[in-house]
Amino acid sequence: MQQNEKQNKPQAQKQPGQTKSTQQQKSAQGANTSVIRSKKGAQQPKAQKRAKQDALKVAFLGGLNEVGKNLTVYEYKGERIAVDCGLAFPDADAPGIDLIIPDFSWLEQNYETLKGIIITHGHEDHIGGLAYLLKRINAPVYATKLTLGLIRGKLKEHKMLDRVKLNEVRARDTFQIGGFTIEPIHVNHSIPDAVAFAITCGAGTVIQTGDFKIDTTPIDGDMIDLARFAHYGKKGVLALLSDSTNAERAGFTMSERKVGESFEALFRKAANKRLIVATFSSNVHRVQQIIDAAVSSGRKVALMGRSMENFVNIALELGYLRAPEGILIPLEWLNRFTPEQLVIITTGSQGEPMSALTRMAFSDHRRVEISPRDCVIISATPIPGNEKTVGRVVNELLKLGADVVYEKMYDVHVSGHACAEELKILMGLTKPRYFIPVHGEQKHLMKHAQLALSMGIDPNNIMIADNGIMLELTNRAMKVGEPVPAGSVYVDGYGVGDVGSAVIRDRKHLAQEGMVIVTVCVDTHTGQLLAGPDIQSKGFVYVKESGDLLEEARQHAIAVVENFPARSKRDTNALKGKLREDISGLMYQRTRRSPLIVPVVLEGA
Amino acid sequence: MQQNEKQNKPQAQKQPGQTKSTQQQKSAQGANTSVIRSKKGAQQPKAQKRAKQDALKVAFLGGLNEVGKNLTVYEYKGERIAVDCGLAFPDADAPGIDLIIPDFSWLEQNYETLKGIIITHGHEDHIGGLAYLLKRINAPVYATKLTLGLIRGKLKEHKMLDRVKLNEVRARDTFQIGGFTIEPIHVNHSIPDAVAFAITCGAGTVIQTGDFKIDTTPIDGDMIDLARFAHYGKKGVLALLSDSTNAERAGFTMSERKVGESFEALFRKAANKRLIVATFSSNVHRVQQIIDAAVSSGRKVALMGRSMENFVNIALELGYLRAPEGILIPLEWLNRFTPEQLVIITTGSQGEPMSALTRMAFSDHRRVEISPRDCVIISATPIPGNEKTVGRVVNELLKLGADVVYEKMYDVHVSGHACAEELKILMGLTKPRYFIPVHGEQKHLMKHAQLALSMGIDPNNIMIADNGIMLELTNRAMKVGEPVPAGSVYVDGYGVGDVGSAVIRDRKHLAQEGMVIVTVCVDTHTGQLLAGPDIQSKGFVYVKESGDLLEEARQHAIAVVENFPARSKRDTNALKGKLREDISGLMYQRTRRSPLIVPVVLEGA
Repeated sequence: MQQNEKQNKPQAQKQPGQTKSTQQQKSAQGANTSVIRSKKGAQQPKAQKRAKQDALKVAFLGGLNEVGKNLTVYEYKGERIAVDCGLAFPDADAPGIDLIIPDFSWLEQNYETLKGIIITHGHEDHIGGLAYLLKRINAPVYATKLTLGLIRGKLKEHKMLDRVKLNEVRARDTFQIGGFTIEPIHVNHSIPDAVAFAITCGAGTVIQTGDFKIDTTPIDGDMIDLARFAHYGKKGVLALLSDSTNAERAGFTMSERKVGESFEALFRKAANKRLIVATFSSNVHRVQQIIDAAVSSGRKVALMGRSMENFVNIALELGYLRAPEGILIPLEWLNRFTPEQLVIITTGSQGEPMSALTRMAFSDHRRVEISPRDCVIISATPIPGNEKTVGRVVNELLKLGADVVYEKMYDVHVSGHACAEELKILMGLTKPRYFIPVHGEQKHLMKHAQLALSMGIDPNNIMIADNGIMLELTNRAMKVGEPVPAGSVYVDGYGVGDVGSAVIRDRKHLAQEGMVIVTVCVDTHTGQLLAGPDIQSKGFVYVKESGDLLEEARQHAIAVVENFPARSKRDTNALKGKLREDISGLMYQRTRRSPLIVPVVLEGA
Repeated sequence: MQQNEKQNKPQAQKQPGQTKSTQQQKSAQGANTSVIRSKKGAQQPKAQKRAKQDALKVAFLGGLNEVGKNLTVYEYKGERIAVDCGLAFPDADAPGIDLIIPDFSWLEQNYETLKGIIITHGHEDHIGGLAYLLKRINAPVYATKLTLGLIRGKLKEHKMLDRVKLNEVRARDTFQIGGFTIEPIHVNHSIPDAVAFAITCGAGTVIQTGDFKIDTTPIDGDMIDLARFAHYGKKGVLALLSDSTNAERAGFTMSERKVGESFEALFRKAANKRLIVATFSSNVHRVQQIIDAAVSSGRKVALMGRSMENFVNIALELGYLRAPEGILIPLEWLNRFTPEQLVIITTGSQGEPMSALTRMAFSDHRRVEISPRDCVIISATPIPGNEKTVGRVVNELLKLGADVVYEKMYDVHVSGHACAEELKILMGLTKPRYFIPVHGEQKHLMKHAQLALSMGIDPNNIMIADNGIMLELTNRAMKVGEPVPAGSVYVDGYGVGDVGSAVIRDRKHLAQEGMVIVTVCVDTHTGQLLAGPDIQSKGFVYVKESGDLLEEARQHAIAVVENFPARSKRDTNALKGKLREDISGLMYQRTRRSPLIVPVVLEGA
């Protein structure tokens, strides 16, 4: 099994947000791609036999050694296609950031080679970065009907719907982008209309699964199209790029239908209560099953949370969700019904602070007050990192007297991703020459690679890659090519890439220790202190209780200014440095804390 | 089952750190306790029959609806004892805080009534707040030998060892504190020398379990003293306060010995590798089993991490840990041995950022470099909230080529807390009149209460209490008495209670949005701008890329000063307010972010 060389070295990866600083890098790396372009530009006679087979290049711009912002680029004979363009949600390491998207600089550099973007399914980690990419490169997009509906919504938000060419594709209907022939293959996942792609070019066929599972009894009736994977397996698959999310889990993922059975049982059990079910808004099958259970128990359904309303409306409109006439009621009607006549479907299954469920739990919701007449079902598993926020919501709901069904108490959730046995079935059907686990952290990728080994795949043909790696695949070999710039770009408010590692470092420091601002106004000619010092602190100590300390800091600042060599006074940076050093030392000595010291020196006349 | 009244009302609890603001509250609440004291002070003739039985009061100052900072106070006829005095570790809700301790103000108010502090075991959530309490009230401390050894270490750090009276107690040896007769009862837990307490006074016997589990084959040879619990059950137990941590888990907790078997097997499997085992330093039994496995596989043992070294040394010294001569080697000797001759026992099983294991994983450790010749065993389960940090450490270790055993891959960890069946056994043996689940979040307490219901305990005799609740127990009834001040006090560096909710709010704001400092120096007589404006930002945007925005802010500030009514110039607060409002509006308009705006106005002459 190969490990890409990069991994044991200091990360060559771009620092988040440092868009500018990598502009230099790119020209070096661009040399590689431009060679290909120049060949193409020179218009070699088609008939000329190549001694050497052209390699299919596969560049990873996101989704490896992380969960999120999936973006894979295929390049063959100077033409590129991208598969998915997702976002990642920031964790405590990127405080205040709204979302994280891949670094597009490598694609931008030869933007005209990007012939199309194909999307496997409509989850944020696969489509959430698309609008940002399309702002840079207006390539045509190809996706299935529901996925396209969701993309349309995003483009509308970004006010660019009319500028982008969207193409609807269907499973088993092959289409062409430049020299690439592409067939979408139906797969099961926690959102309808998900597909894998069989991507064929002169070098062979690569299959990229997207997110998938094998559900033999899915809600929409169509099992994953295993026959199609088998078809390609028979013809010969150059490489399989497969979803590693659940590689650590043995066995099979349960069918979504199992959840429906749990709903029916729980709805019966809570016959005299109002039901509140929290789930992911994109899980249309789950929503369908809640609606079905509501119908069979004679309840009305109300939707809570903006994304839930949006999603259900799109799914209804496009025919992916069926709700009998009159079953869905607007929120305003909640008071017209008794608790046992109602089901509320809500967002907030991850304990997100601003979500509808969290607001209900903390008695902060405009329309819903939780009481002992409520039964709340959290139909989701906490994503790693969210355990505590979900636990808090559960605790608060319990305090309000509600019954709460959470975690593994009943089968109210199944994963959307394939477990070990399913992953092995896909390998067995496609029989790939090369195997590249994708979508996952290192532990997922490695476990998936071990599964491939257990299936008899040659260890030399298994690659654990990384973001920033470009692989070159031919029939003869899989090798690591030139690295490509890849990294995280932070989106914060309107800003894309204007918050980077230095800003984040300051934010973390401020969060841990707070800050102290020391302001003086000095006459730069005489060195005289004209006004101040003024000492202010934020996030450091209670000002009222720390008057002595701040007064002591003021005296220190006066002394610093007075003792500062007169001839150096014009050098305000030196004075700032001295103030920072002195006040910092004082604060540490007195409090054993290191607030960020911000000296401000105004120059008076 | 009773729910205390407080819960559905707005929390009367003290805000963290607001020591001052609750001083007023206390006098009102103190009225209650002082009635009892005045009775006592009046020296009623002992022979006089009381028409009314004196109630045993149980006040919860910590440990309910939270995991950590356990502190329970018993009061009978004006005398008080405290059980445990722990700390809690802060989460993302209290950035930068070192630790959290209970609010002692209620105890301090009648400090002379606190006759003693009894400690169940030596974990931080039971002893970590003790030194802070003893600084306020120097009451004698009672604990078993190892617990006392750990307390001694803490008091030494706080330079107060010579001032505190420490009393060593032993299981089955009854002792007296004022009118309370106390018997420590041996229990099993993830630290040796843990005890429950049977606390007897005129009102009856209360049993408080501390943390416990039932281990029929523990490492130190002594199973929990179930006979003693049965003895009290036969005599009659007024109330049982029992550990709810694992109430949600069905069945029994596995024996610690099971982990030893896994170690033996894994050590054999990794015969040609260096072994690195991460666990809690306080888990002496676990460390014993690692040493035992090292002995039987002919390896030397090195200890990594300051708390690991401290703990092992205390445990060795007091005879709770046995290591054959020459098996423990200093870190300096690591290079004298080959990988297969070594076991390293390290801290960092929770992925703590500064721990030895994390530093090894990120190639930042002075003495240990991880390679494919290492097998790392994480002998612990992530505490909720730590899943992500642990996962990150695992990923990094894997990238360096190490084998990593983590989570549930093998039985390399068992909990120290009783599961449902064990909890029910304890109820069955003690047959308490009243049942009060303690140590846990709401979901744990409620689950534990449900277990009590299933054991046939009268629902009216089950109480889900909360911090700040005082219960009054007599043979006839359990009722909720006057509330007591209880809350969280933040310890940050030297400061105890000087960081409160306002400071934390600022820290969070700074972390999310950063800040912008606007400084001007004005002549308060003429209203003239003497110097500035100076605009600085921290944690907001890249300054280099946002020069235009900051220049725009400067122009705004100039306009604000110039347009400010001349007669109001002396009112610098008004000018600050206007600057804040104006610059804040500009920033939001341009960036859709809301940095903290800090206006500084210097008054020149």
